[in-house]
Formats: sequence, structure tokens, C-alpha cells
Amino acid sequence: MPDIHQRAPLSPDLLRRMDGYWRAANYLSVGQIYLKDNPLLDVPLTLAHIKPRLLGHWGTTPGLNFIYVHLNRMITERDLDMIYIAGPGHGGPGVVAQTYLEGSYTERYPDIERSRSGLHRLFRQFSWPYGIPSHVSPGTPGSIHEGGELGYSLAHAYGAAFDNPGLIVSCVIGDGEAETGALATSWHSNKFLNPVRDGAVLPILHLNGFKIANPTVLARITPDELDALLRGYGYDPHVVAGDDPTLMHQAMAATLDIVFDKIRAIQTRARTGSDTATPERPRWPMIVLRSPKGWTGPKFVDGKPVEGTWRAHQVPLADFKNPDHLRQLDEWMRSYRPGELFDAQGKLRDEYASLAPTGHRRMGSNPHANGGEVLVPLVMPHLSDHAVDVPTPGSATAEATRVLGGFLREVMKLNLAAANFRLFGPDETASNRLDAVYQVSGKEWMAAAIATDTDLSAQGRVMEILSEHMCEGWLEAYLLTGRHGLFSCYEAFIHIIDSMFNQHAKWLKVSRTIAWRKPIASLNYLLTSHVWRQDHNGFSHQDPGFIDHVANKKADVVRIYLPPDANCLLSVADHCLRSRKYINLIIAGKQPEFQWLTMEQAVRHCTAGASIWDWASDTAGEPDVVMACAGDVPTLEIMAAVTLLRDYVPDIRIRVVNVVDLMALQPQSAHPHGLDDRDFDDLFTTDRPVIFAFHGYPAMIHKLVYRRHNHDNFHVRGYQEEGTTTTPFDMVVLNNLDRYQLALDAIMRIPRLHGAVEAATARYWTTMERHRLYIGEHGEDMPEVRDWRWAR
Amino acid sequence: MPDIHQRAPLSPDLLRRMDGYWRAANYLSVGQIYLKDNPLLDVPLTLAHIKPRLLGHWGTTPGLNFIYVHLNRMITERDLDMIYIAGPGHGGPGVVAQTYLEGSYTERYPDIERSRSGLHRLFRQFSWPYGIPSHVSPGTPGSIHEGGELGYSLAHAYGAAFDNPGLIVSCVIGDGEAETGALATSWHSNKFLNPVRDGAVLPILHLNGFKIANPTVLARITPDELDALLRGYGYDPHVVAGDDPTLMHQAMAATLDIVFDKIRAIQTRARTGSDTATPERPRWPMIVLRSPKGWTGPKFVDGKPVEGTWRAHQVPLADFKNPDHLRQLDEWMRSYRPGELFDAQGKLRDEYASLAPTGHRRMGSNPHANGGEVLVPLVMPHLSDHAVDVPTPGSATAEATRVLGGFLREVMKLNLAAANFRLFGPDETASNRLDAVYQVSGKEWMAAAIATDTDLSAQGRVMEILSEHMCEGWLEAYLLTGRHGLFSCYEAFIHIIDSMFNQHAKWLKVSRTIAWRKPIASLNYLLTSHVWRQDHNGFSHQDPGFIDHVANKKADVVRIYLPPDANCLLSVADHCLRSRKYINLIIAGKQPEFQWLTMEQAVRHCTAGASIWDWASDTAGEPDVVMACAGDVPTLEIMAAVTLLRDYVPDIRIRVVNVVDLMALQPQSAHPHGLDDRDFDDLFTTDRPVIFAFHGYPAMIHKLVYRRHNHDNFHVRGYQEEGTTTTPFDMVVLNNLDRYQLALDAIMRIPRLHGAVEAATARYWTTMERHRLYIGEHGEDMPEVRDWRWAR
Repeated sequence: MPDIHQRAPLSPDLLRRMDGYWRAANYLSVGQIYLKDNPLLDVPLTLAHIKPRLLGHWGTTPGLNFIYVHLNRMITERDLDMIYIAGPGHGGPGVVAQTYLEGSYTERYPDIERSRSGLHRLFRQFSWPYGIPSHVSPGTPGSIHEGGELGYSLAHAYGAAFDNPGLIVSCVIGDGEAETGALATSWHSNKFLNPVRDGAVLPILHLNGFKIANPTVLARITPDELDALLRGYGYDPHVVAGDDPTLMHQAMAATLDIVFDKIRAIQTRARTGSDTATPERPRWPMIVLRSPKGWTGPKFVDGKPVEGTWRAHQVPLADFKNPDHLRQLDEWMRSYRPGELFDAQGKLRDEYASLAPTGHRRMGSNPHANGGEVLVPLVMPHLSDHAVDVPTPGSATAEATRVLGGFLREVMKLNLAAANFRLFGPDETASNRLDAVYQVSGKEWMAAAIATDTDLSAQGRVMEILSEHMCEGWLEAYLLTGRHGLFSCYEAFIHIIDSMFNQHAKWLKVSRTIAWRKPIASLNYLLTSHVWRQDHNGFSHQDPGFIDHVANKKADVVRIYLPPDANCLLSVADHCLRSRKYINLIIAGKQPEFQWLTMEQAVRHCTAGASIWDWASDTAGEPDVVMACAGDVPTLEIMAAVTLLRDYVPDIRIRVVNVVDLMALQPQSAHPHGLDDRDFDDLFTTDRPVIFAFHGYPAMIHKLVYRRHNHDNFHVRGYQEEGTTTTPFDMVVLNNLDRYQLALDAIMRIPRLHGAVEAATARYWTTMERHRLYIGEHGEDMPEVRDWRWAR
Repeated sequence: MPDIHQRAPLSPDLLRRMDGYWRAANYLSVGQIYLKDNPLLDVPLTLAHIKPRLLGHWGTTPGLNFIYVHLNRMITERDLDMIYIAGPGHGGPGVVAQTYLEGSYTERYPDIERSRSGLHRLFRQFSWPYGIPSHVSPGTPGSIHEGGELGYSLAHAYGAAFDNPGLIVSCVIGDGEAETGALATSWHSNKFLNPVRDGAVLPILHLNGFKIANPTVLARITPDELDALLRGYGYDPHVVAGDDPTLMHQAMAATLDIVFDKIRAIQTRARTGSDTATPERPRWPMIVLRSPKGWTGPKFVDGKPVEGTWRAHQVPLADFKNPDHLRQLDEWMRSYRPGELFDAQGKLRDEYASLAPTGHRRMGSNPHANGGEVLVPLVMPHLSDHAVDVPTPGSATAEATRVLGGFLREVMKLNLAAANFRLFGPDETASNRLDAVYQVSGKEWMAAAIATDTDLSAQGRVMEILSEHMCEGWLEAYLLTGRHGLFSCYEAFIHIIDSMFNQHAKWLKVSRTIAWRKPIASLNYLLTSHVWRQDHNGFSHQDPGFIDHVANKKADVVRIYLPPDANCLLSVADHCLRSRKYINLIIAGKQPEFQWLTMEQAVRHCTAGASIWDWASDTAGEPDVVMACAGDVPTLEIMAAVTLLRDYVPDIRIRVVNVVDLMALQPQSAHPHGLDDRDFDDLFTTDRPVIFAFHGYPAMIHKLVYRRHNHDNFHVRGYQEEGTTTTPFDMVVLNNLDRYQLALDAIMRIPRLHGAVEAATARYWTTMERHRLYIGEHGEDMPEVRDWRWAR
């Protein structure tokens, strides 16, 4: 094969116009970073035209612009449906410039007109108070990927491509980002993409050689190693390298011609072949683009090399007390020959503007990148078909997540034709007992299969890989492009994606202020295999802190649910799958547990968020104590403690309150789900002791209720980082969340029972002694604990 | 080269004995999982011998045992100093069995004797209440890696190898773990390991083909792809594949001979070559071991294939109501021929036992894996040499982290000879203004270099890669093997390693209960580029929630410091670098800020944890209000608010309290640093309003102080998820943490000033209006805000 750098598929005229378009984008990028006035350089630059605070990232921008211009040619020549993911999201000025040039930007923001005054506002708003951020952000037309935190571009690209067979997702990956863990494993997404059913992802690894202050690993290994690495990841890499714009335009164009031919050939072969049900895993083409960091920018500043070094990363000229810098900026901007590119009114001249795609083919206007526009609501099954029969509270047992699995199977089935629902999990779907879904859809698998494999399928809609990062990234993008899903995960290990959760929550919060961003489906987490039932996994698998992490985010974005039993879990899951624009955190166990509410009661309870369980409470008169609980294991322990208390103190008056929707505890001013003070006081009284058994760290409850009237009477038990490999009941004992402790807590807090405290304490210690001896001897819980039945 | 599987380096006798040793380890592994009695199978197995709860992971264990036996041969034949990292830490029974067989286990736990009764206790303790966890854990001799959460083995291996030129770290990587992000990027650690100065890492990718319930990606790509991938990562892979034990022993032995020859050759060449200062990056050998999951276990159970499938992952036989299962277990255990291996007293027969290394050469007794044993304390510079001159509070400005950089440079210099201190950062050391360290040590870099590179060196002790996972993993292992370090990171992105922090905190907590684990140096985080100064990065870079995450962990392990100025930062950093067994979180800004305390005052203040700043307070009589602060930006705003208040209300009586050590706020019962109630009340009064300006989410302060007398009077301001690309002062305005708001908060809370509230509120709104107009117009803060000087 002749060297790609010798080929010249672009006619001289097209080359000239594409280069002009690129220069225009670069010009607008530099202008955004530097100028608050004089956008067309009508007069020589003076200090008065320069922004007082220079912020932004130049280094990656010319490369992003170069790629965008060339992808535009592919779109127009081949009528492609394509979106653009800029991994180096710091190159915000580039993507903003491109969407402005193609007209998408002005359609979303009419005040940023395609005129001289529009240009003025375009420049000024960038990195300006109340203007736009320097990264690609939710406000950037055509974006589904912020790139503030690096590592997630490629997982996002695949998530967008799933179930979008007509879509091509071009994904620029910075070589800095490529060093992150999330990105390093995301390459393997190609084993989970079916060329028949899914779209194509075109990774473009942009090696500009440097991060903030260091060279990058992938730019400094040998070309042979890089080639082997990418082939090892399963791709067919094509290198475009150099710094001469003319040669690079031709090489990039020739490469894109080849690459898009290959993509089409792969899809055609897979979709028209004899066996579309079991297509082969293709070696998808990808591009490695080696171009200088800060390409076309200042080559030297203050005698030091800048273009092609890490010094080009942010703002290469910054010291405008030095007149040389002002002169250099003026020269740099004029090197793009703006007069050639823009007419006197500041409009891009037609010979260049006509290169852009039109309408929805523009990458800034592609509806897939504004998922709410293409969202089709899920068809939902009837809750009652999946309800657990609960004749009386505590009379039945069920595994909550297994019940949910049946419900999710129906969700999957009812939406198979729409192809807009997937389940994500890090090799834990079966462990989390959701495997009923396999009855209607297997696990996606495009790598090799062997005879003994079960439930794997090229058509699978269950996505399993042992990477929480990938599950999260795929799902985020699947939602952002207008589809639905649920991520089930071991509770402790969801912290692996704490930071990704942050970024998605921030995206959602900002999106709420952008009128043209239509609501997308909520991101739903089901955390199970939770802290209280890590029997053999022990201490390393115990962490309920994701609740705390989520609760820190903006109240209009996050929801936290702790269903106490299977019917409540169904009700909550049903609600969450129908919801929009939220992040819903659901925590529920997978082990067999007692069931409390009928389906009808469960719906009413979950709708209220928190309520008195009348059937377990003394409803006449004021209670001596409120026994409150949130979470399935805490609910069991509270119910058992209530039984103990009624046994110990026959005339005790107890109220049981269960909290499903944790945010109901917060004041209404802090969260839309917050109970108003009167309703809160109706549940928790204003002066009675509240013994609160909580699934997570106890301080969370104090944090939520500290403004409530009765706060000082709240006595909370929860996880306190104790526990090891032990029995289920010993776990609650070790953390003082067990029924005996809760009963003792109540007795100690009820003034009229103070005389009984000493005897109760003694009984408590005797019981604990007996418990410890028993489990040390037998290796399992005492039968009465396992078989405990709550009864009024 | 002839196929490795045709070679036979082991004599028939050695082969027989090694196979016996392997069978013994497998037998002990199965025994731990299943038996509570009859450890030598003296009688046929009955239900009474079987544990009631069957927990543990068989699948990976025989492979781990196989590798261990073969590494033992290398150690004894070549007198190697080697440690063993078991990425599949779930294979706990295997590593426990091995350390028991070699005698390390009994030396640490004398009650687990090498006898029949010791065997009985060994079996029974496993996954038994108050026994040992099913994972490799801090209690496992020779371990520095738990493996509860997957992904960190290879980063740990490299961290252990740094600065240990004589050490070989063998690292078994499970093919499940290999799918995680952290592991996928950790392969690139070889660009940061200097063969002259550092030890060797031998990665052994154990492809047993399956995770919990799915095949693995790396086992199902083509052999060519896998080979290319590993070569692309920079390794020289050697494959050992099969299931016939005899052939596999010979192939593994032959391969290890080759691989260890190559390691020695690489080290010899690098260390004796002409240019030991700039050694070439070697292609280190590694091993791919393909063996069946659950190798040597039941081939079929209930008619379904088990060995070589995911069904072998945990407990392959579990239904002992079925007599077939009992029979199969009996057969399985007897297939190892225990009578041949153990004598009548339960001791491993000499012909096998003599294969193990002795003393510190045993991997379970290697001192490197009990870092406290080999720890050399840091030589520390004098704080006073680095102090910022602060003639009067607020009269000087400094960049706190730049000052710290000078201090760290001296730490680096003073310990260069000991080679036991490194600095870790994800491409942010310079951005975080710690670059003074480059004056004495560059950044480690073994990939290609070019002429314009700066501060890169094969001898560098600053570790920079754009992966927080790798920084954290390297540092953890560097500490666990007895060295010292500091990890500096942008505050928002430290959440990327939330989960790794959890695991390390848990490791430290458990280690405290293990007498033979000697204290290691603390894990120190310096978070800078913090939430309040993300000017151009904006919303995506704002998150102070790591504080909340850390505060959830056990009080005896975590410390959180918020030094208000450079001298306090020095004092805190000095303390943290000298400390042991903690995780210290330090948060400090990098921007120029006003300085408050002299070095002497700073040391006193930081030692107290929280104190009244007398020089800013009205010390006579009770204050009208306590103005409290924690964090550098909140301190500035509080000091400015105090100035405003003195201006508005000349006779106001104010007390200023600054908190450096956040845990001082907690009750003494909750944290060893907690102030006792009397001292707390002396600072915060029992009845005066406290206006508290906090660096992080405000609820954290409520959570810490909710048991304090004056809690109801605490009014906290902090980050509330507001902010975008804007000016520094506007960030505090958007979150209601600005001086004007704080002053208004105080006036509203002081009963005698209620008459002034209306006018103060009006003035507040006028000021805010002026502020917003100004920054919208000028793009930067009003001069009086930037130049504000605090004065009494």
C-alpha cells in the first residue's frame, strides 16, 4: 500500500476551501480565548481588546478543528448521520467555533448571530462571568460529553452507538486522557458492539504529544508498540502524521476515505450476510492523528519553543505587559487571514460556509446529541403482575432483587421492538439475582464463544464487563442519546464511579437551565449485595457511603430510595424507570427477607416517601417512642426490636415509621421531596425519642434532620465500619444495629422506663454473650434469629 | 524456538515433589472452604464434617497455588528476594495454604500449628465468624494487597518495586481484574520503572477464562490479539497453556527459567552498562498462564460442566442434601492423596516441605511485605527555614502550595540517599505549584525523550501519569513496603480513587489489630486547585466531597486538615509526613492569598487543631457572635466579614475561631482529635450565634457538631453546588459564602441588632447588584475585592 501521505484526494480548490474553513475555526478559537473586542481585527490589537483574565486551552484546539472539518466532508459526501465526541473537552473554543460556523450555535443561541456583533459576543462570552465555560459543556450544541474530567469519551461513544445502527460516533481521544484507567479499558468496548444492530464508533487517537506539563505515554512508545497495542485492542489503526497543513489535509482526507469505506463494508457484510444473527466481530478501523500541540500557534515565545510542546497547553501568550506578546498575538491571529474568510459583516464567506453539512446532518444539530428529542417512553408492565403475595406483614419471605428481576424481564420484553432499554452490570447481574432477564435477552458478547457458554448473544441487551467505569459510561451515553437503562452493582464498589456520577449529576443540573436540552431518562442505580450481607466477602466489601456521596449533589437532580421489601422495590423501580432528568439511587438486598406490605400498601407508602406503619403501631395517644427505619435490614431489626419491646414492656406505646424516600427527611426548602415540617412532626412527633435504624452511616440522618423540631431526640444506629467475615446477624450486632440494641436504646430513652434500664442492660449483655458463643461454635446464626418472625 | 510445552527441565523426582506440594496446597484450600472437622480424612466425609455456610472462591485457587509452587523453585534455586501479589485476592485459601505449608503462617499465628490440630483450626477458621476472611487480607502473611476490590494488583506491584533494586515482585493478574480500568492502564507502569534503581515486576496474567458468571475478554480475543496487546503495552509475553499437570509443570518451569534469566540479563545490562544514568527501557518478560478455572476440581456436578467454566468460581459443590455432592467432595479431596503428603501427625512430609524457601526468603515472611519492619523515618527539614514572613496578620501574601513546594524540595533532598520518598501526581505537580522539587529530582520517565523535554529523568522521584488510579496504587504499595510519599491532586478529581481510598483505609484499620504488622507511614493527600478557585475550569471541576468520603471512615485512621495559610500548611505537612498508620487529607489553595500567622503561631494553632484568633477578636466579655472558619478561602471571607461588621456596627463584639483540624469539632468519644466539650464550649460558647464559613458542603459541620451544646446556634455556609466559569469572588457569592453574606448572617443572628437587619439587607442587595454588573462588564472582580486588606 502506498504511503497515505503521498496521496492527494482533495482537488486544489477543495483543499483551499477546507483549509480556509479550518483557519476560520482556529481564528475563532483564538479570538474566544483572547479578545473582548475588535473581533475582525479591523484595527491593530491593543491591550484594550484583550480580556483581563486569559483562560482556556489552545493546545488541543487546532487538532479538534482539523478533525471536525474533515468529518464534515465525509458527512456531506456520504450523507452520514454522525455525532462528535471531543475527549479533550478542554478544547471548548474549537467545538464552539465549529458549531458557530455551521450555524448550529446561532440556532440555539440567537443572540450569537452570524455577524460582526455576533462574533463580538461569541468572543466575549467565552470564559467570562456568566458566559460559557472553557470546556465543551451541556450548553455546547451537539455535545453529549463534557470532558471536564478525562477518561470517558470512548465509553460514551459506544453507549451512543448501541441500538443506533445508522449512527456513526466519531470520538477524539486525547493522548493525556488515554492514560486514564477508564479510557484504557474502554477500547475493549468493541467486543460488545454488534455491527448489525449497533452503529459505528470511529476512535481518533489524537497524539499531540503532551499533557499539562509532561509528554504522554502513547506518544513516546515506539510506533510498533502503539500499532501492536491498538491491534491488540482489536482495531485496525491508520496513522496520519505531520505538521504541514497541505500534506496533512490530503493525508487525512485519503485516510478518512479508506476508513469510511471500511466501516461501510463491515456494516454491509454484517447486515446482508448469510448469518446476521451471529455476525463476526469486525476489526473496526480507527485513526491515529499525530499533529503538533498548539498547531499553527506561536512557535516560540520569549525564546522558548511553544508549538509542539506542553507550553502550548493553555494560553501560549499571556504576559501582555510585554509588548512583544501583543504583537505576536496580532501576528498569530492575522496568520489565519480573517479578511479572506469573513465578509465585512463578519459572516463566513459562502465558498467556505458551503462546506458544512446542513440541517440535522450538522454535528451540532444532530438530534441524537439532544437525547430528549428522540426519547421514546418505555412501555411498562403492570406492577400487580409481579407483586409478592403478603397476606399479613412478615408472613412471607422473598428475595427482593429476584422479584425485581421478573419485572425487569417484562420491561425488557415489552421494549424489545423499540430497542431502547438495556441493563448494565459489572459481571453481577446473576449474582444480584436479576437473571430472569436472560429469558428474553442474553448478555451481549461479540468475542469468541465456546460450547459451554450460556446466555451470551450478539443480540444481548444485558451489558456485562468487569468494569464499573464502562457500565457507567455506556449507560450515561445511552441515556444522553434518548434511551433507558439501569445499572446494578455491588454497593461497596459503586464508589469506583463516584467521580463519573459527579460529572453526570453536574451535566444534568446545568442541562435544566438550557431550554433546548429536552429531558432525558433518569440514570438508575440498583445497589444490592449491600453492606449488611457481605457474609464471606467481609470488611472489604462493606461501604454504604454512596448515599452520602449522592446526597451532596443538587437536590433537584438526586433521589435516594431504600425500599424495605420486594413490593416497595417494585414500586420504586417502576417510578424511577418512568422518571426523567434525575439520578435515582435504589438500595435493596438480594437475600430472602421478610415481606411487609401488599402491592397496594407499597405503592401508597412509596408515594408518601415515609409513613407510619399503623399495623405495627399503637395508634391511640402519643407514643412512648418512635421506632424508625430506612433500609431492608434495618427494617427487619426494628420490627424485631418492636416485638422484643412489647414482650419486655407490655404496656409500651410504640410508633413504627418507615422511610423509603430518604430525601423526605430533609426540609422542603432543601429538597422537593422533603416533607413539610407539619407532616414531619406528625410522623416523628416533636418531643418523643426516635430510635432510627439506618442502612448507611448514621450521621447522614442527623445531617438530613438537623433543622427539624425533634432533631435532638433522634438516636441513630447504622453502619460504623465494623464487620468482618461473620454471620448476617453478627454484622448488625457488630455495628450496634441489632434488635436487642435497638430495644435497649428505646428503653433507655423512655423516661418512665428508667427503672428498667439496669435489668434490660444486663439482659442485653447476656444475650450478646450467648450469641457470640453460638456463632463461634456453630459458624452460623442461632436458629431463633434466622427464623425470627415479627408479630404484633 | 522450540515450543515451550516440549521442554522438560524438571527431573522426574523434582516434578513428583513439586506436584505433591501443589496437591497439598490444593487439598488445604478445599479443606478450608468445606471442612470444620476430619482434616486428614481419617474417616469418610459425613455431613457433620461440613461447614454450615459454604463460602469462598475455589476457581482461581489452584492456579494461584501452581504459580506459588513454581516461584518457590525460582527463589530457592536462585536465592531471590521475592514477594507475591495475588490480584485474584479471592483466592485467599490458596495463599493461606501456601504460607501455612512454608511455615510463615504458623510463625505469625502459633495456634495454627503444623500438626493435625493446627490443620483442624486452619480449616475451621476460614470464613468462620471471628475467623479469617475468604480474601487475602492484612492478616495474610506476606501480603500487601487485599484484592477485595479488583484492579490494583499491578499498580501495587510496581509501587513495591520502586527503589527496591534487589526485589522481584511477582504479580498474578486475574483475567477478570484485567478488565477494570485501573488494571488496564497499570501495564504502562513499565515506562516508570528504572532497571538500575528499581526492582523487577513479573506480571503473570492468569487466564482461567471466566469471571463470576461470564467469560473474560482477554481469554476470548485471538491469541494474536492478546500477544499484540501485551507487546503494545511494552512486554515480552511467554505463554504457558494447558491442563495436564505434568506437561504444565514442565512448561511453567521452563518458562520461568527463561523469564528469570531475562530479568537478570536486563538488570545486569542496565546496571553494568556504560550509561547507567540513562538506561534503555527494557521489554520486561511476563507470563500468560492459561489453565482451567477450578483446575483439578470436579469436572461435572449435577451433569453440568464445572472445571473450566464459570461454575467453578466459588463453591462448586454446595448442595449437601444431595448425597452425591458429599461423595464427590470426598473423592475430590482424596484425589490429592493426602496420605502421601501429610504424615500421621498432619505435618507435610519432608520430601515436599524441603522444597520451600527458608527464613525471609519465604514469600510469607519477606520483610518488604510488612513495611513497618523496614521503614526508615524521613529526615525532615526545619520548618523555620521555609516560613513565610508575616509581620502582621494579612500584611503578606503567598501561594501556600508553592511555599510547601520549597519544603518538599528539602524533604526530597535530605532523603535522596535513603531513596525512600517520592511525590505522586496526575500531571499536576507543576500546576499545583510544587515544582521546586524538580531542583533536586526530576520526573521519572523511561519512555522516549526529546530535546525540548524538561525535568524528565530516569532517576526522577516525582511520579506523574494522567491516572489517579496509578498514582494512588503506586503510593499505597510504596508505603506498604516501608517508604514515604505524598499524592497531590486536584480536589474534584480525587473522587476517581474514592474506592481505592476505602480499601486502603480498611486495610489500615484491620492492620491495627494485627500485632506483627508494624506501623507504616501515613498516606498523605494534598488536594489543591480546589473548589473555590476553578475559575476557568468551572462547574465540572468543583467538588469538595472527598472530605465527606474520608470522614465516614474509622476515626482512628483518618485525619482532615484545612490549613488557612502557608505557614499552617507547612506545619500540617510536617506533622503528616512524620505520622504513621493514618490517612491524612490536607486541602490548601495554590493561589496568592493573604497570610495570617507566623510560623510559631501556626505551629501552636495547628497543634491545638482549632483556636480563637485573639488578635482578630474582642477578648473582653462574651462575644455577640462567633465568626468561625475552616479552609483558606472561607478564612479570607470571614476576616473580610469581620472587617465589614466592625465598620457597620462599631461596638460589635466578635470572636474569630479558625479550625485547621476538622476532626477537632467531633466529640472526643467519636475521634481522638475531638475537643472535649469544655474546650469546645470555650471556643464556640454555649449560647452565641456561630457563623461558620466552611470549605466543603455545609452539612459536614452539622454532622460533626450535632452533639455539641451550642449546635443549634451554628449557621454554616459552604459549597452548595453553585458556580460556573466566573471570577474567584463571584464563586463565593454564588454559594453565599461571601463576606457580605457572612456579615449579614451575623447581623441577623445577633438579637440586639435586629433593628439593623432591614438596612443591612438592603445594603447587601445593592452591593451584590454592583458586583454582578461590574464583573459582567469587566470580566474580573472589582478592585476593592481583589485588593481587600483585612484590618482590625
